[in-house]
Amino acid sequence: MYADNSVVKDINQMHQSNYGLEGLSHITVAGALAHGMKEVEVWLETVSAGQRTPIHRHSCEEVFVVLKGRGTLFLGSTSLKYPGTPQEIPFSQNSTFTVPINDPHQVWNSDEHEDLQFLVIISRPPVKVFLYDDWSMPHTAAKLKFPFLWDEDCLAAPKDEL
Amino acid sequence: MYADNSVVKDINQMHQSNYGLEGLSHITVAGALAHGMKEVEVWLETVSAGQRTPIHRHSCEEVFVVLKGRGTLFLGSTSLKYPGTPQEIPFSQNSTFTVPINDPHQVWNSDEHEDLQFLVIISRPPVKVFLYDDWSMPHTAAKLKFPFLWDEDCLAAPKDEL
Repeated sequence: MYADNSVVKDINQMHQSNYGLEGLSHITVAGALAHGMKEVEVWLETVSAGQRTPIHRHSCEEVFVVLKGRGTLFLGSTSLKYPGTPQEIPFSQNSTFTVPINDPHQVWNSDEHEDLQFLVIISRPPVKVFLYDDWSMPHTAAKLKFPFLWDEDCLAAPKDEL
Repeated sequence: MYADNSVVKDINQMHQSNYGLEGLSHITVAGALAHGMKEVEVWLETVSAGQRTPIHRHSCEEVFVVLKGRGTLFLGSTSLKYPGTPQEIPFSQNSTFTVPINDPHQVWNSDEHEDLQFLVIISRPPVKVFLYDDWSMPHTAAKLKFPFLWDEDCLAAPKDEL
């Protein structure tokens, strides 16, 4: 529909993968490594029924715009040495929320049938993600994953250049 | 559905206005002055059939995600002293495009019947908008409108405090 070098891109035709995370579909709609963005990045993500994102934190602003389905935001603490029992905040289609900078969080598709789809907007790309095994893991023990999965994919040498 | 002070906001219940621009509906989904964002801002805008945004530029990154309808992006030049005859770039539902920093541009709902709806993501909020009367107006003559319409609205003193 649009040429590969077009200013306009058909989102349905953009590269989509789960990047090894079960039940996730991620598309980098506008990315630092993928498209040369410097200040903002936009993702379209779909989470299957019952699935959760990893528990993680990052030092950037993050806005969710929920396009389809419903879910629960789990939000941990930064005042303890570990996230602790998270707040459970339900949300559904046509809602928006922001995750405070550095707050450990997880998004759960709490529906039994329907996909959950949202746009994510982050500042300071590419994202530097710290991953927690669980809510009792100390903040200082969370593991940095950088570049993150989809960015790693952008950095991988094209196979036909080897 | 959600409490006023909730982390999660129902976008359909958020403040919506045309701010004096004919055929526009603007909602600040996540804003600097409205919600304390520092690095990114997200708008949901709907443009009626046949209507256009003003011709304008701003010194920030800008990403469009087109949710409904179709339209044309007009993109002027920064290499001349004025925008000149713009490129005309058609787009439709489920597409995305970015507007290069400082490029004069205008979005037209080129459909005769259907609304055009998109999310806009900008960096460096609040936005500093330079407005052009037409495509032959010199860049240096474009008029700064700051704070912009919806931000001005946020800054207005609550009437019951006067």
